[in-house]
Amino acid sequence: MAIIYLDNAASTWPKPPGVKERMAEVIEDFAANPGRGGHTLAMKASKTVFRTRVQLSRLFGIQNPNNLFFYLNATQALNQAIKGFLKPGDHVISSSVEHNSVRRPIEYMRRVHQVEATFVEPRGDHLFHVDDFAKAIQPNTRLLVVSHASNLTGVILPIAELGKLAKEKGITFLVDASQSAGVLPIHVEEMNIGMLAFPGHKGLYGPQGTGGLYVHSDIDLEPLLHGGTGSQSEAIEQPTTRPDRYESGTLNTVGLAGLLAGVEFVLEKGVENIRQHEWELAKQTITGLQQIPGVEVYGPGIETERVAVIAFNIGQVDASEVSFILDQQYGIATRSGYHCTPLGHHTAGTEQRGAVRASFGMFNTEKDVEALMNAVREIASAFS
Amino acid sequence: MAIIYLDNAASTWPKPPGVKERMAEVIEDFAANPGRGGHTLAMKASKTVFRTRVQLSRLFGIQNPNNLFFYLNATQALNQAIKGFLKPGDHVISSSVEHNSVRRPIEYMRRVHQVEATFVEPRGDHLFHVDDFAKAIQPNTRLLVVSHASNLTGVILPIAELGKLAKEKGITFLVDASQSAGVLPIHVEEMNIGMLAFPGHKGLYGPQGTGGLYVHSDIDLEPLLHGGTGSQSEAIEQPTTRPDRYESGTLNTVGLAGLLAGVEFVLEKGVENIRQHEWELAKQTITGLQQIPGVEVYGPGIETERVAVIAFNIGQVDASEVSFILDQQYGIATRSGYHCTPLGHHTAGTEQRGAVRASFGMFNTEKDVEALMNAVREIASAFS
Repeated sequence: MAIIYLDNAASTWPKPPGVKERMAEVIEDFAANPGRGGHTLAMKASKTVFRTRVQLSRLFGIQNPNNLFFYLNATQALNQAIKGFLKPGDHVISSSVEHNSVRRPIEYMRRVHQVEATFVEPRGDHLFHVDDFAKAIQPNTRLLVVSHASNLTGVILPIAELGKLAKEKGITFLVDASQSAGVLPIHVEEMNIGMLAFPGHKGLYGPQGTGGLYVHSDIDLEPLLHGGTGSQSEAIEQPTTRPDRYESGTLNTVGLAGLLAGVEFVLEKGVENIRQHEWELAKQTITGLQQIPGVEVYGPGIETERVAVIAFNIGQVDASEVSFILDQQYGIATRSGYHCTPLGHHTAGTEQRGAVRASFGMFNTEKDVEALMNAVREIASAFS
Repeated sequence: MAIIYLDNAASTWPKPPGVKERMAEVIEDFAANPGRGGHTLAMKASKTVFRTRVQLSRLFGIQNPNNLFFYLNATQALNQAIKGFLKPGDHVISSSVEHNSVRRPIEYMRRVHQVEATFVEPRGDHLFHVDDFAKAIQPNTRLLVVSHASNLTGVILPIAELGKLAKEKGITFLVDASQSAGVLPIHVEEMNIGMLAFPGHKGLYGPQGTGGLYVHSDIDLEPLLHGGTGSQSEAIEQPTTRPDRYESGTLNTVGLAGLLAGVEFVLEKGVENIRQHEWELAKQTITGLQQIPGVEVYGPGIETERVAVIAFNIGQVDASEVSFILDQQYGIATRSGYHCTPLGHHTAGTEQRGAVRASFGMFNTEKDVEALMNAVREIASAFS
């Protein structure tokens, strides 16, 4: 049975041509340590990493590629951004659909480092309104951090408008692009984004083990990690030069070569085209699910654009039971459970039971949507 | 010109058969998110990660594989260990040959979190004596952290004896196995090692982007990263279960599959055999270099075992110049500079000029040593 993969919000799969090949090339030809020696192999590794920085900078409108730092995943990037920026007495504003990778660092800063936090909720239309963020601002508000799109309901947050608000009020703006990098247009300069965290293995079609953080030149963070750096290795303190200051230890050169292939795939296809393809599939899925008796779809209707992440439940059937049946009986990979967003579930009203999540990528087709609809229809009627 | 790779202390190369293939398999077949969903692909990913944990546990004598956490590199592991363990008022003892990945986190804790530190120096024989560590113990000493072997001179520290001392005195013992994992025998239980940090891409022959930390069940650390975890995703706090508590965000599944192949290569060859092979090459290199007029080799002579990392200089020639000529004229990859260990250079007396470093792995042969000897002989006579 061919697998129909609808878990792209966790990791996109399959990967485009070139990802595997580029990684194999690095292992074969130059698995040396970038920036840790001047020999030919190390230079080759170093060039690949730099090229990945450059292509990502093109994608996100970043002026200086050295303001982009590579990490294991978006979680590490968000921890660096949040913990490296906030100081005791600061107030941070965030949203109620944040992933644990934003929520838990904020809670930690609240618990241990005397930081205050406000989580803004969406209105009855499931949407977030800039006014509500404006109202949350206090004299000590220094950071606004939001997810570009919910990993549960796919709802898109108005980051261009939030960026404007943050700029007006002199607040630093951090965007978690975990569900949007490669999927929605992002331009850090035009959108006044001071910091942007992103995973490499989702909409950028790279391998797991890659992710990064953009930090505007004017923003100085306390490094989260201290250690070996290519430059100023004779100093006891972290170097001040970027990216070295924020990239201690050996990078995932192999993974970054794969990410380079992924980003070039995205640049070649064009974010707008990817967006349109995924939104078509999402609309079909939402419409289809809404027509099946007993199925509840969370979030707004198709009149409101969202990313191609759709959460639903079938009657009172346990979400994990539905995912299990979809996987075992139909070969359809979805995800069930809490999706690392307790607040998001509270917002969606699914905190007691979780939800089944279907999420689409560039390689999904209308046939995949049809297969899901048929399966859900059969499961719903079996349990009704 | 075929490349003679003598920079294995930075990253081993080439990689054994299977590393590239296992990684490609993950990209092709199951690039899904381990522990983030119950579907077939995610389960496959999850199994691979667990198998890597199990094989590493075999290698290091770890009883419970869930006490082993995966990171981007050894630097992240060391930051988690040092910053997660030390509290204001604590005293930490370390050595003067530590890499910046140990030294800089300690300096940070000293500067920001009121931690005291003592760095023990070697004696005139280049060796570290347990007595000198014993003398450094204070009533508030809570942590002893040493590199198993210097990344500059290859000197091996007496970790079994230090483990005994730490146990007697009730001090937690952290070992940085960056230069020894896969190269020297390590048994965390027998050696009383409370925490063990290791890279995946050096002596374990895995790809870059992998590394890990073992933490004994009795030791509780403050997590360095907070974020999404496979378990208890409905809670606002980090889960208490291992490994989830210390592994936030998506793991480098692809890289860990490659690491699995590397570790299985090491287990199959046997650490003792690898050790013997590398020590033979090291002895030849040290002896050969000592016979070339004008060449200075740092560290002890061949009567003292060390790992196959050899630092030297040719007369007054700049180290980076020598490395450059070796690379460009002879196709021999070495490393020059400060090797991220300012203290180590102070100890070796090379702080002003750095040193050329040649380091060997399982795939090097006597021919490689001969090629290096011929090249160094020619360079030395050209500059004399």
